[in-house]
Amino acid sequence: MQATAAQPPQPVDLVIAGGIVVTMDARHTVYNPGAVAVRGNAIATVGPRDQVAAAYRAARTLDASNALVMPGLVNGHTHLPMTMFRGLADDLPLDTWLQQYIWPSEREFLSPDHVRWGTLLGAAEMLRGGVTTFCDMYFFEDDVAAAAHAAGLRGIVAQGFLDFPTPQGLDVEQNVAYAEQLIARWQGNSRIIPALAPHALYTVSPPLLKRLHALAVQHDVPLVIHLAETRNEGQQIAAKYGASPVRALATLGLLDQRLIAAHCVWVDAEEQALLAQGRVGVIHCPRSNLKLADGVAPVPDMLAAGVRLGLGTDGAASNNQINLFAEADAAALIHKAVRLDPLAVPAAAAVEMATIGGARALGLDHLIGSLEPGKRADVILLDLDEDNLVPLYNPLSHLAYAARSADVRTVLVDGQVVLEDRRLLSLDEAEVRHQVRALAADIAARQRAHP
Amino acid sequence: MQATAAQPPQPVDLVIAGGIVVTMDARHTVYNPGAVAVRGNAIATVGPRDQVAAAYRAARTLDASNALVMPGLVNGHTHLPMTMFRGLADDLPLDTWLQQYIWPSEREFLSPDHVRWGTLLGAAEMLRGGVTTFCDMYFFEDDVAAAAHAAGLRGIVAQGFLDFPTPQGLDVEQNVAYAEQLIARWQGNSRIIPALAPHALYTVSPPLLKRLHALAVQHDVPLVIHLAETRNEGQQIAAKYGASPVRALATLGLLDQRLIAAHCVWVDAEEQALLAQGRVGVIHCPRSNLKLADGVAPVPDMLAAGVRLGLGTDGAASNNQINLFAEADAAALIHKAVRLDPLAVPAAAAVEMATIGGARALGLDHLIGSLEPGKRADVILLDLDEDNLVPLYNPLSHLAYAARSADVRTVLVDGQVVLEDRRLLSLDEAEVRHQVRALAADIAARQRAHP
Repeated sequence: MQATAAQPPQPVDLVIAGGIVVTMDARHTVYNPGAVAVRGNAIATVGPRDQVAAAYRAARTLDASNALVMPGLVNGHTHLPMTMFRGLADDLPLDTWLQQYIWPSEREFLSPDHVRWGTLLGAAEMLRGGVTTFCDMYFFEDDVAAAAHAAGLRGIVAQGFLDFPTPQGLDVEQNVAYAEQLIARWQGNSRIIPALAPHALYTVSPPLLKRLHALAVQHDVPLVIHLAETRNEGQQIAAKYGASPVRALATLGLLDQRLIAAHCVWVDAEEQALLAQGRVGVIHCPRSNLKLADGVAPVPDMLAAGVRLGLGTDGAASNNQINLFAEADAAALIHKAVRLDPLAVPAAAAVEMATIGGARALGLDHLIGSLEPGKRADVILLDLDEDNLVPLYNPLSHLAYAARSADVRTVLVDGQVVLEDRRLLSLDEAEVRHQVRALAADIAARQRAHP
Repeated sequence: MQATAAQPPQPVDLVIAGGIVVTMDARHTVYNPGAVAVRGNAIATVGPRDQVAAAYRAARTLDASNALVMPGLVNGHTHLPMTMFRGLADDLPLDTWLQQYIWPSEREFLSPDHVRWGTLLGAAEMLRGGVTTFCDMYFFEDDVAAAAHAAGLRGIVAQGFLDFPTPQGLDVEQNVAYAEQLIARWQGNSRIIPALAPHALYTVSPPLLKRLHALAVQHDVPLVIHLAETRNEGQQIAAKYGASPVRALATLGLLDQRLIAAHCVWVDAEEQALLAQGRVGVIHCPRSNLKLADGVAPVPDMLAAGVRLGLGTDGAASNNQINLFAEADAAALIHKAVRLDPLAVPAAAAVEMATIGGARALGLDHLIGSLEPGKRADVILLDLDEDNLVPLYNPLSHLAYAARSADVRTVLVDGQVVLEDRRLLSLDEAEVRHQVRALAADIAARQRAHP
């Protein structure tokens, strides 16, 4: 921040004062003790505590002494309503899991009610764990958008497309009409960004892929897809297209900055270069990839190739936590052992993927991902009095290897305090739990009837 | 439990009533709603809530409705005082990390004070995360024992041995005398078990290994060692012994039920059979193995071979959390992706390793590891109102994939309530943090002086 000694203090709405401020700006600047001044929904300044105190007069001050202050985390890939299926079925091959458990449950139970309560549960879990921005791909996305907006989150809500009727009961034409309404309703909202989501190359054929891409260009919205998740997918696509999934998308003209591609586990060096050149946002979902036995994505190589990498939790049916600290931790750890290289993904790289990297992958780095003047005030405070964060030699090390979602104490999104000293202000969590349990009881009863 | 309808209620000290009781007995019995009756330091009965209520009259009742009740977790390998070095240095090759950071800091700073406060911090972190039993290997183990005992934990405290003088400043003869005093002081204690710990094959020569084994037999105490942790260790031992680490120990006659061997990352099928036949306790430390880039232990093969497997956190300098839920989660997840097999380590196997499996590996399964009448009352309660545990279809799935250390609400060790509704009753945590930070400030100052 600039010196303002000669000027009178400027009024701001809020100052977060004290503590260790980890900005995640390009130089990884840390202020200790630092402060963040917020005006409206934006960051007015970030700097040393005493300078900010001298330059700004705050209507309200949040005491961050003994806290770590950092940008809100970015969950780049999830299916929030699937919290409803958390732990419904595990330890199964992917096709059995999908065909015998998840899809039948979706066909039978999916409704706006299910989607609303599942989204609110996921929203509560994310906010409590420091996630302020998400990218969702599912059905009934207008209900996802409304629930996430009510919860106070920032996010991309991408309506899912399949060649066949979706679990929402819409054929392609009906789904296009629904998505256009979704876009019309939410475009321009300060926190919710509508988007289109062809599910994957193996469920959406080239004409629909091209049509959705054209629609995304026309409306200037993101395009979200699952890409190169399993070895089996690669084999299927090779048989159908005579090319790998990434090359098939390149041929279709879809590899551009608008695309947000989840997984990319099975991508070779040439494909990584295509993803980097295309400025595609790639979302690494390490815990889902582990649990579903997809394999281990070549993250160190993708980082070296300049791919825009973020992190995602995937849905709670395949993780089973919507916990971005756990993803950052997994991203920092697993590649080291698989490559027998303790430097494979350093702490700073993992924290970048969880914050500014994820923002860049979602095309939102001009708004979020770091604490810098002019960006939206999406800020989280971690409690440094948690045993696992004591002592503290290096903040980035703690964020990658020691911090837990439960250490998050306070969360601001778009300048609003949504979680304060672990009290969630935007939701009635007891009611959310009650509704989710009631809906889950029906799903469990169906399981017992058709085991 | 047996029907007792005709008898008058028997008096007990405590009943934990309601909730989902996951016993981890041989049949994985779950009572919902269940109850656990405690008399003195032992479990009097476990069963359906209403039957227990009818059969026992409790001096005190703990309400466990909307909790998951399970045996306390077993952390089979750690170095508690190393919490003092948490995050001091990461993302380094093992030899640089040890030789330039950890060993110089140990030589300069290790003292009874450092060990006491570091142990208390690790004890607080473990209790808050549901760990009731640990196995420690370090120096000044009498101070580790005293601190852990004061914290209310159950544990094995194994005095570390090297061929050369230890960071405690003791040569081999002095260290043997120290260890014999440790044994004399603690043997027979209800919670603390003294033990001997030759550090590893590459730091302890055959004569001392044999001598410590004989001493362990003489005093009937466990023997704790690091074994087959890195590929480099295998190469070193092969050059020195003409055999792999496991085969070298077998030749020395050390592979028996007394031995607790941490890591075992690099063990082939024949070595796994030797470990199983010898009834050696093997402690899988997945997060440490990942972070130090040791590799991925062949856990599915070891389970199939009948090796007695538990889980360990290792020290906080190489993890950086003393969090057994994170270890169980890692153990359940990583092997699936490395083997491209979603069934590699099922949820139940991970939870077993964290409880009864760990107890068996430490030779303590007659006392702990499951909720069964006659065993010690080491019991933990998880809060099922945490978002990440909603909804609940399958308790074992949640324990492996969704539960977090922070979900632990209440902990009993040896019949005593040590953590109650997240208040730690046995320690002044603020004082522990204050003391650890003061000692860590000196270590950080040294780092800055000798970077």
